[in-house]
Amino acid sequence: MYTTKAIAKKVQNGNFEVITIERGWTSEDDVDIEVKFCGFSPFADVHLANYNWGSVPGLYAVVGHEITGVVSKIGDNVKDVTVGDHVGVGYFIDSCLKCEYCHKGEENNCVSGITRTSCGIIKHGRVKNDNGRFSYGGRSKKITVNRRFLSTIPKSYPLEKAAPIMCAGVTMFTPLKKFGALNGGLKIGIMGFGGLGQMGAIMAKAMGNEVTVISTSNKKEELARQMGMDGYIVSKDLDFMKKSSNSLDIILDTIGADHEIENYLDMLKKNGTFVVLGIVSKPFEVDSKKLIGDQIKITGSDTGGMKVTQECIEFMAKKELFVETKLISSLDQLQKVDEELTKGTASSLYRYVIDIGKLL
Amino acid sequence: MYTTKAIAKKVQNGNFEVITIERGWTSEDDVDIEVKFCGFSPFADVHLANYNWGSVPGLYAVVGHEITGVVSKIGDNVKDVTVGDHVGVGYFIDSCLKCEYCHKGEENNCVSGITRTSCGIIKHGRVKNDNGRFSYGGRSKKITVNRRFLSTIPKSYPLEKAAPIMCAGVTMFTPLKKFGALNGGLKIGIMGFGGLGQMGAIMAKAMGNEVTVISTSNKKEELARQMGMDGYIVSKDLDFMKKSSNSLDIILDTIGADHEIENYLDMLKKNGTFVVLGIVSKPFEVDSKKLIGDQIKITGSDTGGMKVTQECIEFMAKKELFVETKLISSLDQLQKVDEELTKGTASSLYRYVIDIGKLL
Repeated sequence: MYTTKAIAKKVQNGNFEVITIERGWTSEDDVDIEVKFCGFSPFADVHLANYNWGSVPGLYAVVGHEITGVVSKIGDNVKDVTVGDHVGVGYFIDSCLKCEYCHKGEENNCVSGITRTSCGIIKHGRVKNDNGRFSYGGRSKKITVNRRFLSTIPKSYPLEKAAPIMCAGVTMFTPLKKFGALNGGLKIGIMGFGGLGQMGAIMAKAMGNEVTVISTSNKKEELARQMGMDGYIVSKDLDFMKKSSNSLDIILDTIGADHEIENYLDMLKKNGTFVVLGIVSKPFEVDSKKLIGDQIKITGSDTGGMKVTQECIEFMAKKELFVETKLISSLDQLQKVDEELTKGTASSLYRYVIDIGKLL
Repeated sequence: MYTTKAIAKKVQNGNFEVITIERGWTSEDDVDIEVKFCGFSPFADVHLANYNWGSVPGLYAVVGHEITGVVSKIGDNVKDVTVGDHVGVGYFIDSCLKCEYCHKGEENNCVSGITRTSCGIIKHGRVKNDNGRFSYGGRSKKITVNRRFLSTIPKSYPLEKAAPIMCAGVTMFTPLKKFGALNGGLKIGIMGFGGLGQMGAIMAKAMGNEVTVISTSNKKEELARQMGMDGYIVSKDLDFMKKSSNSLDIILDTIGADHEIENYLDMLKKNGTFVVLGIVSKPFEVDSKKLIGDQIKITGSDTGGMKVTQECIEFMAKKELFVETKLISSLDQLQKVDEELTKGTASSLYRYVIDIGKLL
């Protein structure tokens, strides 16, 4: 076991503080990482860090699951990663490694359940820390992760930009790949043009697809055009929505608030795919006639397995694609952004990334 | 133009009668068929024939879109079908033949819309009859169809058994093929074990998959076992449903009455596919957490294009698979079955097929 610094609130609605935690190795397959950047997941990280979803007495929530950094030490069994390499850690750091999903690199679907990178139940034996029950995430100076749950990041790609790719990016890349957009030639709609929507849009465009942004207002139209998007539709303009019916192969729905999807489904071509990416409280209503008549598919995506994560980061590096990020480099800034995200007043035009190297 | 006999009600709630209609050729791509059998679609055929969905003064509804028969005459341009060949006609007899879907043999998805085989709007130029506006279906001694909209049926396969394959069969075969069941090795659930469910079950089984029937009662369990099915789950037994969670790759939902799908979705494995086959009035409620967490797909299927229809009939013939059919060979019998289907008292254990050769 070794000690390292981390960031957490000690009490609900408290302020972020620097605390000390202990982590350890479980085998010679482990890798130590000097954390450089940690993406700020605007929903989960706010609630987990503030104990809104529960707390354990004496245990502090060290959140963060979009981690990038530099390898500082490797176990004897680790052959394909070495000290100084750039690596990333995403939504999970352990799984059973025995089931059909783990075998094909879809560990996110592990039948025994993953161990989440932060505040996850430690259960498969490859995570060790001072509390022994729940994982500490990426808002920490140093982290130890089994090689199997690490992605390598090309040195040409900035670690700051790579951080949000580790979970949010993979969440967008996975359905694009799964539903045939990787080789281009499709027409893709992106609902919502915040951090997640923009990420999906630049990926879909770089794959060679035609991309239309669908937003509730025209506020982001200029930005979308600047970013090279092919179309922009205001969803309140139902006439225009109707004119666009039967036009899209895939729609990625990144909207995080309750909404109907009926009018959007009409925009899909026959056999088209509607991908839900934001968890909302109200169930979607889906008409059987629509499903049968148009053979559209309605599905969802959260993160991806190790295989597609590696593919995603290499795709971003190869195409030199960068998402808009905004750095947080002090506890005060972190506190301020956290409050804005809680109140819903934070800008959705970029992803916040914590500069752990500077802050800790 | 030529005259031929057909079956229709002259007024709503009237009795079926033999009437005379006129059909004609539109080009040398046409083929005349001596109709032998016509499947009875238990929902559409009842309502269309009784003018429940509308009527046109002076025009009689000759329904039927699962037609099999023998070629009696061919146009000069027809090279690959000849007099005496066994052929079939399904849900549609014309489409634009210009759009991307028609080009790839998915004419059912034609962007300009198909001309349905019975009571369909004549609009693409390849259908001709005495009323000039709506198509006459398969309850008729003779029909003329453009070669492009004909399937050939191997002579080894009985025309009686082939009739329900032309639409109902293709409806089940299409999603099985589309979602990877054709090469076997998947676990398939069939909800509802009537004519449609049985058809899907024997196909899925013959493809080499493990098939579980999910029914509201245990009434059909013996039949399912006799037919070689691997499992049988009573959907009211929620404990058993829970035990079966995360176990199926594909569920084909053939239930035609309003129902919730939530508990059934839990039975799907990650990335699994739920296919809706029966149009119901109440929309399905779908939880975003379920879609995102399990990445399941919810979709639907009605019929299939010419390509998959041909593939389906050849598969049935090659595997020597036969669906349970019950022949109707008199107007009285037709009247009786029609009334039973209207009242909902007809058996759902087989598909009714009209013996047109004997009746007309």
